Amino acid sequence: MATAKVKPTILVVRLFFLVTITLSSQPSLASQSSKSNRPSSKWAPRFLGRFSQPPNQQQQYRYETKYFSQRLDHFSFSELPNFPQRYLINTESWVGPERLGPIFFYCGNEGDIEWFAENTGFVWEIAPRFGAMVVFPEHRYYGESMPYGSIDVAYKNATTLSYLTAGQALADFAVLIRELKRNLSAEACPVVLFGGSYGGMLASWMRLKYPHVAIGALASSAPILQFEDIVPPETFYDIVSNSFKRESTSCFNTIKESWDALVSEGQKNDGLLKLTETFHLCRKLNKTQDLADWLDSAYSYLAMVNYPYSANFMMPLPGHPIREVCRKIDSLPDGTSILKRIFEGVSIYYNYTGGVDCFEVDAEDPHGLDGWNWQACTEMVMPMSSSRDVSMFPTFDYNYSSFQEGCWRDFRVKPRPRWITTEFGGHDIKATLKNFGSNIIFANGLLDPWSGSSVLQNISETIVALNTEEGAHHVDLRAATAEDPDWLVEQRATEIKLIEGWINNYHQEKKAIFYM
Amino acid sequence: MATAKVKPTILVVRLFFLVTITLSSQPSLASQSSKSNRPSSKWAPRFLGRFSQPPNQQQQYRYETKYFSQRLDHFSFSELPNFPQRYLINTESWVGPERLGPIFFYCGNEGDIEWFAENTGFVWEIAPRFGAMVVFPEHRYYGESMPYGSIDVAYKNATTLSYLTAGQALADFAVLIRELKRNLSAEACPVVLFGGSYGGMLASWMRLKYPHVAIGALASSAPILQFEDIVPPETFYDIVSNSFKRESTSCFNTIKESWDALVSEGQKNDGLLKLTETFHLCRKLNKTQDLADWLDSAYSYLAMVNYPYSANFMMPLPGHPIREVCRKIDSLPDGTSILKRIFEGVSIYYNYTGGVDCFEVDAEDPHGLDGWNWQACTEMVMPMSSSRDVSMFPTFDYNYSSFQEGCWRDFRVKPRPRWITTEFGGHDIKATLKNFGSNIIFANGLLDPWSGSSVLQNISETIVALNTEEGAHHVDLRAATAEDPDWLVEQRATEIKLIEGWINNYHQEKKAIFYM
Repeated sequence: MATAKVKPTILVVRLFFLVTITLSSQPSLASQSSKSNRPSSKWAPRFLGRFSQPPNQQQQYRYETKYFSQRLDHFSFSELPNFPQRYLINTESWVGPERLGPIFFYCGNEGDIEWFAENTGFVWEIAPRFGAMVVFPEHRYYGESMPYGSIDVAYKNATTLSYLTAGQALADFAVLIRELKRNLSAEACPVVLFGGSYGGMLASWMRLKYPHVAIGALASSAPILQFEDIVPPETFYDIVSNSFKRESTSCFNTIKESWDALVSEGQKNDGLLKLTETFHLCRKLNKTQDLADWLDSAYSYLAMVNYPYSANFMMPLPGHPIREVCRKIDSLPDGTSILKRIFEGVSIYYNYTGGVDCFEVDAEDPHGLDGWNWQACTEMVMPMSSSRDVSMFPTFDYNYSSFQEGCWRDFRVKPRPRWITTEFGGHDIKATLKNFGSNIIFANGLLDPWSGSSVLQNISETIVALNTEEGAHHVDLRAATAEDPDWLVEQRATEIKLIEGWINNYHQEKKAIFYM
Repeated sequence: MATAKVKPTILVVRLFFLVTITLSSQPSLASQSSKSNRPSSKWAPRFLGRFSQPPNQQQQYRYETKYFSQRLDHFSFSELPNFPQRYLINTESWVGPERLGPIFFYCGNEGDIEWFAENTGFVWEIAPRFGAMVVFPEHRYYGESMPYGSIDVAYKNATTLSYLTAGQALADFAVLIRELKRNLSAEACPVVLFGGSYGGMLASWMRLKYPHVAIGALASSAPILQFEDIVPPETFYDIVSNSFKRESTSCFNTIKESWDALVSEGQKNDGLLKLTETFHLCRKLNKTQDLADWLDSAYSYLAMVNYPYSANFMMPLPGHPIREVCRKIDSLPDGTSILKRIFEGVSIYYNYTGGVDCFEVDAEDPHGLDGWNWQACTEMVMPMSSSRDVSMFPTFDYNYSSFQEGCWRDFRVKPRPRWITTEFGGHDIKATLKNFGSNIIFANGLLDPWSGSSVLQNISETIVALNTEEGAHHVDLRAATAEDPDWLVEQRATEIKLIEGWINNYHQEKKAIFYM
């Protein structure tokens, strides 16, 4: 029996932000979730899917795997054990230090770096025309780049996890770049940063904080403004909801009404069993909330991968997948129950190829404590809510107190919701950076619900927003395919042109200073 | 009996960088210093004088003293005790948040913040014309801003000291500014940074790393390039030496020859006693090296305070003090010994008012472990050497190994000589920042030996170098006096104009965005 948990082709969604939300402010569902003694671990916006597994992918690109000994804390002189940071490197196309061959450096995000390398074909494909070296460093506390010798020790408690921060990761990158350059006598070679999602946030922050280390950054789908009060907390779910509404108002309404139907059903005698059957779950549902989260994930991901062409992008989906989901929901015969419609709709997402017999909704984190949950509970505090009018999700307000309590119970850590904006900024970003900084591309597909908290306006001549109307979550970073629409081909061409401009300017200034 | 140790008017030199060097590569003196089991603590370039004491100054400026609870480690989530950061604040001239009243923020350096406040009259004096608030925050681990409740615990060992870093200090400033602004509803008010010496380094780095927190920085006498191989290590002593040579070649030669004379004398029977007498020391000299260091300090300070007008700046000195020292050395009757000439010369520096009866050459650090020594042994690794041809000091090469050994013996810490340039940059600064960053003034007096490792060329239209030919160490930050020469009056006027420009631009951009 195939289940959604073990079917890799269906579950290759790791490169995407995924939000799973608490519905605790939605009274009926809240009462369900409060049955659990342990607080839900789903109150924090996530980047990678809870229901996703690493792809069983063949290695497509050639690289060497190396390890670099990193300080655990760059910002103090505490005596702590170093850890091995894994990085993938390919120098085959590099034209070398004499010709100032560029270094293309992907800012590894929250997962195994091999997955990111395989799913970031753009960097591999353009490196030869630039004569560039390619480096994919892994983010600390993920994949094999584990402090304290093992994930069990590294993830043991708040003390061992305490160095899992964005700032430390950026310092890892900076130190690694300088050491690589020194070893290759490549001090003068320009570094260009790449990153998608959280990796895109890292790339843009790195360019701002380490301008002397990298000459520019392509930050794709980087929601660097999803902090504090910079954007309204309902932004994300409003965009998801609008993506459904623009396809079909009745589909939107069906989903909007389904949450109450779900709760009613769950409260009946044998209600959880019935829901288990309706949704073809592999095991009996424990609580309605789990199913609600599973549905929420599907809608959120659908909005992220809502590309206008058929793609085996993260999972095989038709073009305009939301349109297909809504077509299914709307087209079922009169008299079909709301929940049956919902099931058939999300099956487009979870089971487009039809190979899944039953679904696992309570996919457990294989590590018990999850790295991103820690990051969300410490620095990456991204307020999310669901509005009464625009959203098709259960209405809920952002509740910082209960979020904070959950973090304390799960990790014994107190979040610092103002730290990211203190360290990296975000408020008033246009005024702040108008005459400061340079060479950052913020690339966003406007269908992507994360685009609402990224930079969508040019900040200056060289900090530019590259928006694609029909684009979704950082598709530009993926390998080119024969089916790419024109706008995507053009988007990548523009990115290449901008990067060429950075490198040419760098060469000219180097020369100017040399001959001065 | 007055001694140089207790005479505050003579010893008010705390705002100055002071270099005290090891002479270990100078064979004859090296053999002396190796007699000590404990390594000399004088191998590290220092900012504040070993022979200086806090001034017994009356408070000239009005401010409230407040304390802010700071995280000990901003860059991890380790559970550590917070510490109270002291800051001085005056809001009397502030025009308030509605009128976007600026916040003038001095980046406190390695000492009691009250000393810096008293000695940075420029900021106090210009605040009213800007309607600005004035804030002087203290640097962590100095003055009253002591982690772990007391200096004894804070300075106990490498573990407790490990959070004494520039990066943590900058984060303190950023967090404090954001909290102050929030409490005063002053989020939109522009912050302008000020700093001299190490504080100037902090100010410029802060503007680069926290552009969203402060709109500009006046970094006076900030030798941010005195790291690794960015400037030649002999820069400092060459400038000191040239300052003497340009006044008098014979004076320069006398000093250059005096080191051997010193060693010969010290090696004789009763040599140390004779030196004690010749130099009017309060207590019998332990080793020649101590006297050499004391002389070195005098020459280095003289170069820093080599102002063209009589000043009671850090201590009462005549105008062109090096000219006066050389005049004294050169004018003594034929037959006067070299060492007698040297003594008479440095007396201009250590005893211009004639009130000192005997001198203390081995001024001990009152805290045993000294904060700046820690910083020099960890991040602030500033290579220094003395060249054979240009320098009047004993020739010595920079010896990183012995430096590192000394740090291990003194603190059980391993220096990270590449960290500052990784975190803040420095190499190739012009190319790196040409199109990056804005609104920094690097102010330098070219007579200041530290100017050789600061930024002396404009980097861009808004990162500018303001050099004064006759200026020395950050005199521009001090209160105006009736004796200020025209160039100093003009320098300050230019600084005010530039700062006005930053603030006006900020107001205009705020308006432009508001009405967009």
